[in-house]
Amino acid sequence: MMRMTTILAGLVLASAMSTTAMAESDPAERALEYRQGAFNAMAWSFGPMAAMVKNKMPYDAALFTMHAERVAFLAHLPLEGFVPGSKIGDTTAKQEVWDNADDFRLGMEGLISEANKLVTVSQAGDLDAIRPQFGALGKTCKGCHDDYRTE
Amino acid sequence: MMRMTTILAGLVLASAMSTTAMAESDPAERALEYRQGAFNAMAWSFGPMAAMVKNKMPYDAALFTMHAERVAFLAHLPLEGFVPGSKIGDTTAKQEVWDNADDFRLGMEGLISEANKLVTVSQAGDLDAIRPQFGALGKTCKGCHDDYRTE
Repeated sequence: MMRMTTILAGLVLASAMSTTAMAESDPAERALEYRQGAFNAMAWSFGPMAAMVKNKMPYDAALFTMHAERVAFLAHLPLEGFVPGSKIGDTTAKQEVWDNADDFRLGMEGLISEANKLVTVSQAGDLDAIRPQFGALGKTCKGCHDDYRTE
Repeated sequence: MMRMTTILAGLVLASAMSTTAMAESDPAERALEYRQGAFNAMAWSFGPMAAMVKNKMPYDAALFTMHAERVAFLAHLPLEGFVPGSKIGDTTAKQEVWDNADDFRLGMEGLISEANKLVTVSQAGDLDAIRPQFGALGKTCKGCHDDYRTE
């Protein structure tokens, strides 16, 4: 029974990983795909929020909150993908991510904190109150990008 | 005031998007990056769960539940990234994703459902009860991969 379970678990893992990720047996490559994936998923949610803030799309309170919640959740993910030795491939991470790890962690915690505040503000459904908090969230993105990401 | 807000929102969006995503102004490219990102983030969480199920890593109930919760959350994301016209680039999605959209949606809903069940089971902290549900979750991955993903 245990052997069947073990085999099944292996198949499950194999089928769950993307073709690309499977080809990369290197843990650093997987970490890179993971953190870039989490950031790309976050970026997607900024699209409709920014469009609503800019009045380029009708304000939809439920949709805005959904995307704010997604960013707040996703913001917890990338940090553990910056494993030692993963400044590789097409990464835009600077060496300072690892050299100033405590400060980088504070930056990621700031992202989580401001995203959580955006969720709370957005639940009141007032776009004028949302705008400054959306700006505060964006400042945490920009702060880390300036210090820790190559252009 | 509105103009400053508009400018700020534009900067926020620009800084939030990854360099890669920004270079791809094509909405289909962004959708591809988004859905692949969500799947890659999910794949990362399958790693430690599979290792615990296979006894290759000590069972840590809180860690297992955290990863089950991440998969349950992330499982909601990819579907909206399969926008029309996004069978492009290095996608492994078959044309059937769009041709059989209702069935594909059912598959993604099955993923959400089984991931939610895994969260519930995992909260009881019994690895022997977790194993079959982890297998059931893996079957939903494999089911869609067989029908909708190229190898």
